[in-house]
Amino acid sequence: MDKIFRIDMTNLTVAIEPVPEAWKGLGGRALTSTIVAAEVPPTCHALGPNNELVFAPGLLSGTAASNAGRFSCGAKSPLTGGIKECSAGGSSSRILARLGIKAVILQGQPKGDGWYSIVVRKDGAEIVPESETLGMGNFAVVDAVAKRHGEDFGVISLGPAGEHLMAISDISVKDPDGRIRSFGRGGLGAVMGSKKVKFIAVDPEGTANLPIADPVKFKEANKAFTKTLNDHPVSGQGLKKYGTAVLVNIINEAGGLPTKNFTTGQCDHHDAISGEQMYDNIVARGGEPTHGCSVGCQIQCSQIYHDEKGEFVTSGFEYETIWALGADALIKDLDIIAEIDREMDDIGVDSIETPVMFAVAMEAGILPWGDGKRLLEMLREDIAKGTPLGRLLGAGTGNLGRAYGLTRIPVVKNQAIPAYDPRAIKGIGVTYATTTMGADHTAGYAIATNVLNVGGKVDPLSNDGQVDLSRNLQIATAAIDSTGLCLFIAFPALDIPLCLTSVVDMLNARYGLALTGDDVVALGKHVLKVEHEFNLAAGLGPETDRLPEFFELEPLAPHQVKWDMNPKELERFWSF
Amino acid sequence: MDKIFRIDMTNLTVAIEPVPEAWKGLGGRALTSTIVAAEVPPTCHALGPNNELVFAPGLLSGTAASNAGRFSCGAKSPLTGGIKECSAGGSSSRILARLGIKAVILQGQPKGDGWYSIVVRKDGAEIVPESETLGMGNFAVVDAVAKRHGEDFGVISLGPAGEHLMAISDISVKDPDGRIRSFGRGGLGAVMGSKKVKFIAVDPEGTANLPIADPVKFKEANKAFTKTLNDHPVSGQGLKKYGTAVLVNIINEAGGLPTKNFTTGQCDHHDAISGEQMYDNIVARGGEPTHGCSVGCQIQCSQIYHDEKGEFVTSGFEYETIWALGADALIKDLDIIAEIDREMDDIGVDSIETPVMFAVAMEAGILPWGDGKRLLEMLREDIAKGTPLGRLLGAGTGNLGRAYGLTRIPVVKNQAIPAYDPRAIKGIGVTYATTTMGADHTAGYAIATNVLNVGGKVDPLSNDGQVDLSRNLQIATAAIDSTGLCLFIAFPALDIPLCLTSVVDMLNARYGLALTGDDVVALGKHVLKVEHEFNLAAGLGPETDRLPEFFELEPLAPHQVKWDMNPKELERFWSF
Repeated sequence: MDKIFRIDMTNLTVAIEPVPEAWKGLGGRALTSTIVAAEVPPTCHALGPNNELVFAPGLLSGTAASNAGRFSCGAKSPLTGGIKECSAGGSSSRILARLGIKAVILQGQPKGDGWYSIVVRKDGAEIVPESETLGMGNFAVVDAVAKRHGEDFGVISLGPAGEHLMAISDISVKDPDGRIRSFGRGGLGAVMGSKKVKFIAVDPEGTANLPIADPVKFKEANKAFTKTLNDHPVSGQGLKKYGTAVLVNIINEAGGLPTKNFTTGQCDHHDAISGEQMYDNIVARGGEPTHGCSVGCQIQCSQIYHDEKGEFVTSGFEYETIWALGADALIKDLDIIAEIDREMDDIGVDSIETPVMFAVAMEAGILPWGDGKRLLEMLREDIAKGTPLGRLLGAGTGNLGRAYGLTRIPVVKNQAIPAYDPRAIKGIGVTYATTTMGADHTAGYAIATNVLNVGGKVDPLSNDGQVDLSRNLQIATAAIDSTGLCLFIAFPALDIPLCLTSVVDMLNARYGLALTGDDVVALGKHVLKVEHEFNLAAGLGPETDRLPEFFELEPLAPHQVKWDMNPKELERFWSF
Repeated sequence: MDKIFRIDMTNLTVAIEPVPEAWKGLGGRALTSTIVAAEVPPTCHALGPNNELVFAPGLLSGTAASNAGRFSCGAKSPLTGGIKECSAGGSSSRILARLGIKAVILQGQPKGDGWYSIVVRKDGAEIVPESETLGMGNFAVVDAVAKRHGEDFGVISLGPAGEHLMAISDISVKDPDGRIRSFGRGGLGAVMGSKKVKFIAVDPEGTANLPIADPVKFKEANKAFTKTLNDHPVSGQGLKKYGTAVLVNIINEAGGLPTKNFTTGQCDHHDAISGEQMYDNIVARGGEPTHGCSVGCQIQCSQIYHDEKGEFVTSGFEYETIWALGADALIKDLDIIAEIDREMDDIGVDSIETPVMFAVAMEAGILPWGDGKRLLEMLREDIAKGTPLGRLLGAGTGNLGRAYGLTRIPVVKNQAIPAYDPRAIKGIGVTYATTTMGADHTAGYAIATNVLNVGGKVDPLSNDGQVDLSRNLQIATAAIDSTGLCLFIAFPALDIPLCLTSVVDMLNARYGLALTGDDVVALGKHVLKVEHEFNLAAGLGPETDRLPEFFELEPLAPHQVKWDMNPKELERFWSF
């Protein structure tokens, strides 16, 4: 019998509730967004007692489905002021799902200064005062929880940045190798910190195989699904070999690699920070070029990156991070970038927001362009310790840019813009502007069709067709984010019809339903509308569905293009 | 023939334009808001080339009317993101009016790093490269302009904070004694700084008496008007003797004096920071308890405050400043408060936003509660010099509070809440929430009727009647702000019918019109609606017409009251 764990941090009580009828068909993002929209007053302070932090495995999490190891975390975001959903891998999603826990809701706020940790078990949860791990980085927390509770516990934790309630802070999730995955964006770490929870440990005791209504059909569908993952060149080859960093050279070639705080679209030293260079380093030093973030992953886009001495530095070393540090902040050395990546995981900060903020800090003159060593020092000495300088940086790209009176501040709804310049790749600009999440490439990855020729081809330099492209992708994404499946299944899903029908078959086989592709589309639309209603009620009206003005004023090399999408065209996005 | 000076800082050109027909009946706030709404794209970056900074004397400025020495400055605010109008005294309003200049519009933005000064003369303006005064405080700028151009020039200038484009920066105006008045709120200094203008000098050469359609009627009306100013106890006695600081003890008694960052409504050391104490110090030390900010002032609420050695410290030493430093930031020594007031004038920062921000900084642990010396040091060493700490502070109350993850951040539309707690004086809460300006007591001074029994009596602790009270006051205020008259004429205007009819008579006599009181009300409504439309188009929808959540969660002593106004009731504000 599925259940919802409601953990009240005001009264330090735990309630185990049946799943309300209206929420039974929901999982992942559909469930977190529905709960947040139903229970959180849209205009509340995101770090006050009225916000809630919700964790929810997806509809296929915990099953044998390939790439179903992800879960969602939702809340009102202290960074954007709107609704937020993040997806992460790691081991906790699978454990929660296999305990029959559809969602964990953290609500309220303790009155005093004391901190807590939470242990979630099959039949209940304990809220205990926490002191040992306070101030610790995430790697040490993972070790401490393993010692205290067991190696096989799931861990959902905060680094020091989350304890400081910084808007750049994220929430970390232990992966099957004891390393760090993240609910990266929107300052969710600060929400967990505002509830004074340093970590949640998830006890695997009592996990069980989930009921499958039609096991044979499920197995067949999963087999067909897995084949599409392996057959598609992006999910089956590109991501497997080079990880997401395969994109450095591709996006540079497209002229859309934002460089030196979005002042140009190509980076001279792109080869030095490319996926190909990363692969060569990994192979030469005995790391692992392919690695999964969760059990059941077929794509294996993660990797284990070693230093020159052959010692572990980081894993889950993503294109976005490498772009932001390497091109946007002009740090030319991939090894320093890797060290910063690890440090960001440890301190618990978003590896997009943070380096984009540092590029703005470089433009502001706080540190020299490309100075990765000084950046590392500021991470360790200022952000982790919460000095005034650390607070200035830790509040994110928008706050920092405003403090220096800059006009080139790459944010939408106050969240940093990721690794694709919207002037040269206009479909992603529509996604940045319109998504409920603030600037977020994963919300509707138009790069697929604008650049990678996946799902057809829409000219990246033209405005034509971009709103429809982004809308279709955002709807599909919202549905995928509700299944617990990795978003990268979208590559085969866009090109191979069998991929999506197999997913629908798995959902039907799991729950004994007769859904069609239209039902999945309807779910995606429903999720977007629930989120959009929340944002409107929070004060994020259509005037906030815009890119920063500098994209309209400053042409981007090499194509010498500006952002020139008519706002009326953008407003058409929500007509569905 | 009236004219508009349009100064283009992109091309460094000046155009003298006739006044468009639609703008002929407008002045002051009505004119600045109309121009900003007509010419500034609401979603533009406030510090980019598309914003404009507009100065406009009022409809009665430059005449013999009492208390008509004020003018308006308008722009899109970098602090609130909405439209902004500030009113200030000083000598420039009268000079501009008597040169026949209805408005000076600064538009565009220079491409390079160079700074400029501007000299406005009867028949043109010069834009000249500026270096001598860069980095100077406002007092030194005033001296430098006097030496370079003449003692009798008007001066509109920036301190270092405006050069740093800080959101707490203001624009200073030289008063007839060579001291500083300010367009205080909303970061207008940053807008002027973004246009690279350090100061505007206004040459009085060629000023002339203004044409008066009916001089006899004008003189009679002004005489009657002046009598009402002198007859009313607030404008004729209270403000004259104790200045605005007369309010310290009154608002403390009402339980609405926000103390220690809005955690309680009364301050133990209120006597030490009261208007009565200020008066005693001034008299004992040879200062001047009564003093006018501009030619023709009858109320004389300003003063000259000396230190213990009898030397000048500050003038225009206002209740808001004394409250924010004395009660909200717990600085008990009026002499240190005076020194800080002078320093804020010199550096060019809003003396409401800045101390409210410092009280938040104290709550954040950046400096100890009540430590005026450390605060002075931070003003001089960090804010004036633009260090990272100075930037953290200089971005204002909202930005700082967010950087520290605080929930008790007293701002509306990101602008600091002034000296009256909305929980205990609910009418002013309606004004804070609904005014187009962000939290601003001057937009609709409900204290008059909630506390001072001026214009009747509305119970400050009840929600009944507050929306209507605030609306009527905001409409009247928008009209008064368009005349160039000091807002303090509102006290007699609310109680003595002859006051307002005399103002209408003066307008009619000046321009040969036949306006009625209804026309004045219609003007006020029109101004509010123009501003509101701009704000809606800038993304400040009804959800931003709210007070911060903490007012709803934390009861205020001594009345143990919360803010409990129904948002629907607030939304009724705009039904007119």
